[in-house]
Amino acid sequence: MSHFPSPRFEDVLLAAERIKPLVSRTQILNSSLLDSWLTPEGIEGAGHRIFFKAECMQRTGAFKLRGASNVLAALAEQGEMPTHVVANSSGNHAQAIAYACQEFGLPATIFTTTSVSKVKAAATEYYGADILQFDTREQADEAVKEAATRSGVLWVPPFNHPHIIAGQGTAAFEAIQDIGEVDAAVAPVGGGGLISGTLLAVRGLCPNAKVIGAEPLNANDAAVSLREGKIVKLTETPQTLADGAATPCVGELTFPFIQQLDDFYEVDEVQIAYWTQWLQHLLKIHVEPTSAMSMAAVAGYLAEQESAKRVLVILSGGNIDQAMMQRIWQTDYLTQPPML
Amino acid sequence: MSHFPSPRFEDVLLAAERIKPLVSRTQILNSSLLDSWLTPEGIEGAGHRIFFKAECMQRTGAFKLRGASNVLAALAEQGEMPTHVVANSSGNHAQAIAYACQEFGLPATIFTTTSVSKVKAAATEYYGADILQFDTREQADEAVKEAATRSGVLWVPPFNHPHIIAGQGTAAFEAIQDIGEVDAAVAPVGGGGLISGTLLAVRGLCPNAKVIGAEPLNANDAAVSLREGKIVKLTETPQTLADGAATPCVGELTFPFIQQLDDFYEVDEVQIAYWTQWLQHLLKIHVEPTSAMSMAAVAGYLAEQESAKRVLVILSGGNIDQAMMQRIWQTDYLTQPPML
Repeated sequence: MSHFPSPRFEDVLLAAERIKPLVSRTQILNSSLLDSWLTPEGIEGAGHRIFFKAECMQRTGAFKLRGASNVLAALAEQGEMPTHVVANSSGNHAQAIAYACQEFGLPATIFTTTSVSKVKAAATEYYGADILQFDTREQADEAVKEAATRSGVLWVPPFNHPHIIAGQGTAAFEAIQDIGEVDAAVAPVGGGGLISGTLLAVRGLCPNAKVIGAEPLNANDAAVSLREGKIVKLTETPQTLADGAATPCVGELTFPFIQQLDDFYEVDEVQIAYWTQWLQHLLKIHVEPTSAMSMAAVAGYLAEQESAKRVLVILSGGNIDQAMMQRIWQTDYLTQPPML
Repeated sequence: MSHFPSPRFEDVLLAAERIKPLVSRTQILNSSLLDSWLTPEGIEGAGHRIFFKAECMQRTGAFKLRGASNVLAALAEQGEMPTHVVANSSGNHAQAIAYACQEFGLPATIFTTTSVSKVKAAATEYYGADILQFDTREQADEAVKEAATRSGVLWVPPFNHPHIIAGQGTAAFEAIQDIGEVDAAVAPVGGGGLISGTLLAVRGLCPNAKVIGAEPLNANDAAVSLREGKIVKLTETPQTLADGAATPCVGELTFPFIQQLDDFYEVDEVQIAYWTQWLQHLLKIHVEPTSAMSMAAVAGYLAEQESAKRVLVILSGGNIDQAMMQRIWQTDYLTQPPML
């Protein structure tokens, strides 16, 4: 079991106040064309409405800054600032830690592998962090563990931490403050930090709303864990466009939240590419496949509704390398509009 | 010569008031990473700053709605509304006309070719316009001319019209209202409506600022026209990623404005793809190559400056089909950051 207590709705409220000066209040985007396409004939009411919380426009390009900022800001409140921060990540969490540490004037070191994307490494270094590269992920994980034992050094994990979960929940919290009550909220599931925080925020603000998770079918450890009732780890490195949700397993803190979800979708690679193209095209944002994946769940949910619904979608980020963009756009899905 | 009078700064002011309820006041985006990369060592002042006016987030996905709305709103003011609107276009102008006519409750018909992109045709029809497809562009142009002779029918040209030019100028006008004075403004040159309006707005608000145009080298009719001192028409259909600037020639109304520009850049296809990748990556928006092309001019301008400059870039739109996205992303330019 984790040695951290499970976060509650109150922790999301505190996080929202705490990180206000550190994060952007990202906008809510809509597409009237998409709304009309996803509203079947004869639905009761004015038609479905989808509200996109554009965390791809967040500083550092992803929601991860919310959790990282919340961890450091909470320590600052308590007067327990570390002298050095370390993290193991090759992606959005690394950039978030680097940026948040720069804001607090703290040195940060990121432990990663030699296969780290040059673009992501350059951004992490731009935000002032040092990068240590290892041959394998296991070596990087071992080294960060060793570094974290030193006095004054704080290791910030990517999702399995109450302040990370509460911080990530502030995206849904802000969104519902801005748009009012929703009938459903959807977010991607990697390690589970975002979906857990989203669940806390939505249950606190709209107790009757459905909270729905989406995961790549090719990295469906959370779905398998849900079926088996215990955390199951992927045995191989998953191949998926939704790289932000390719985490090997969920956390001890996040799994109980995932078990409270109202529905859960496993999304195949064609669907992921399809929705990435359509969201980029309709919303005019550079949104990553991990975010667009949620739309398969939205379409599934809306297809079952008999009256008009308001759905919140947390678009997690927009950091995509060239190889990924090429894969997303290799087949033309824009000739197949997503009519229900 | 055109039978229309040349627009003035006052026309931009009037247009800005007139179209306020019809267009979005699009945001200004920045990238601190890009600013730092484009600021050489030893520059006087805090460093260059680039302000992006995100017209890709405009309704219908491009600045074209400004001009189209201004034409119709001006006629409405004068009590001279047509009974039907026609236009010949296969791109952003068609969507703008369709949308604006829907706002005014006017029927619209778009004359285009059978090669029109299905995605763009679908959006145009969604906004309520009829589409007539012809085998060749010449046939479509002939048919729209014939239609426009009928009583009550108004043909709205894509750029060679004073209210179109003044309307397009409202993008720069709004931007300078929001960010204050700039040292330079850059926009792409197709038919010349956007750059002409931008020149009017910038000269009116910041008389000392440079106004700079950018055009694809592969469709450099404006550059050739500037060199020859008269409007020269492309003899072949140009092959360029910057399809919004592939217009065969500039207009009689726009050419005199283009002749007043402070500088003009012809941009090759590698540079266009390069900057499209970087702007999509850094700004997290789905911006089209025609817009990103301006960055070659920005980099050229900034490389010659000895003190810190504030530059406004009008990002014209974000309507990109799959074939274009594939071409933009086929080579990896994100491993080559744009350091000066």
